[in-house]
Amino acid sequence: MVTFKITVAYDGSGFVGWQRQAHGTSIQGLIEDAVGAFAGRAVVVHGAGRTDAGVHALGQVASFTIDRDIDAGTVVRATNARLPDSVRVLDAEPVDPRFHARHSARGKTYAYRILNRRVPDVFQRAYVWHVAAALDADAMASAARPLAGRHDFAAFQASGASTHTTERTVRAISISPPRRTQNGDGSMPVGPFAGLERDVMTIEIAGDGFLRHMVRTIVGSLVEIGSGRREPEWLGRVLASRDRALAGPTAPASGLFLVRVAYDADPLADEC
Amino acid sequence: MVTFKITVAYDGSGFVGWQRQAHGTSIQGLIEDAVGAFAGRAVVVHGAGRTDAGVHALGQVASFTIDRDIDAGTVVRATNARLPDSVRVLDAEPVDPRFHARHSARGKTYAYRILNRRVPDVFQRAYVWHVAAALDADAMASAARPLAGRHDFAAFQASGASTHTTERTVRAISISPPRRTQNGDGSMPVGPFAGLERDVMTIEIAGDGFLRHMVRTIVGSLVEIGSGRREPEWLGRVLASRDRALAGPTAPASGLFLVRVAYDADPLADEC
Repeated sequence: MVTFKITVAYDGSGFVGWQRQAHGTSIQGLIEDAVGAFAGRAVVVHGAGRTDAGVHALGQVASFTIDRDIDAGTVVRATNARLPDSVRVLDAEPVDPRFHARHSARGKTYAYRILNRRVPDVFQRAYVWHVAAALDADAMASAARPLAGRHDFAAFQASGASTHTTERTVRAISISPPRRTQNGDGSMPVGPFAGLERDVMTIEIAGDGFLRHMVRTIVGSLVEIGSGRREPEWLGRVLASRDRALAGPTAPASGLFLVRVAYDADPLADEC
Repeated sequence: MVTFKITVAYDGSGFVGWQRQAHGTSIQGLIEDAVGAFAGRAVVVHGAGRTDAGVHALGQVASFTIDRDIDAGTVVRATNARLPDSVRVLDAEPVDPRFHARHSARGKTYAYRILNRRVPDVFQRAYVWHVAAALDADAMASAARPLAGRHDFAAFQASGASTHTTERTVRAISISPPRRTQNGDGSMPVGPFAGLERDVMTIEIAGDGFLRHMVRTIVGSLVEIGSGRREPEWLGRVLASRDRALAGPTAPASGLFLVRVAYDADPLADEC
């Protein structure tokens, strides 16, 4: 019996999300089928986070246990050989059998990308939220400050969701204003995609855990402020209200990326 | 009557190419339908280059004549309102009625992107050719040198294609080796896509015109050299042979981008 921890990247477009569903293709289902094929029996693959339909991952983590003696490199190759090219196992490592991708997770980091300019980008439409109105990044950063720390985030939870507790700790929230030049040093870009971060605002949120739609509702609320429809002080009042009806709209799934998941042994664990 | 020159970007995935076909969706067809809707009658839209199925454009140029008095800003908005978000008109300008996007073109620049590393990228699969074998950029650059200038490029033309002449002038061909660090200055990337040019080799070719599949067959041949299957000197012999059977395979459409089209008035015309 060997337990493996795998790191997975995927383009969430066209999937019903991480979790296996009655209908549609899930990333969990694809990986379970791929691992089951070389394990020789059905295998349950536990993911650290249940990303929704259309949400992407740069570093989702999952774990599973198989009873075949197989090395980590073979796990990567054999799984990828059975996956579509929109899902890739980046890494695999044998871990303590008590390791569980979700229960052992210490924290997660999400990034949300907003393309903030008049014209959308044909190549990035599945990887950003296109917001045409100019956003005030300073106002958004100032509004976001009260979110850091341990709070009841019920106001930012998907309506209808139920969890044991709606308290979570946001360890860090940062807003990178849209880059209006091609390269940081003013030089010209190399290649057609070198300017891809141009006009993109990135909101990064790290915490011990997230409620369903929490990042997207925070982002949707921040855009209300950035576009001038709300004052920065409004966000703290929404948080205190614990009332979902007061928060802004849920930002589209396309802009959201699960960047990484942290575990105890990880030196970055305290930053997520 | 007013003639417009428009600049168009598109994600070529899922289209049959620029040119209207009996079956499938073409970019030309979409734009003709969109322009026709506000022009009040059927309009022919001439493109500068007939990009193949799956080939992308950052700056395709097209022209058409309509008999309604309409300003350039309205042309952009009215056309985009009727296009899918994978096709965007970036700019429109009224031009001399003798202007024709293809006949007036002085030159074109194409870029070809190769993702050169072991693991593919889930987000870029439609925008690169993934080559796992390490490529020797110096050998490729040295091999490419004899292609510059005026030559008979019959060896790099799609089999079955017929044109008046297979002579073309390549004004410049450059190979940017894969960037192995995130940013040129060694700094850390900002945002999940900041490292998108990492491990990407870009081959840029500018010339007065290109035969069908010419760029892709040159790229496919250069990869034969970069991966060590052929010597750099081989490419000059292929060129001299004018025999398509001797060249390398045609590189996939996904990596190819029409970057820009140059016209007489354009100060960049001599570089394309």
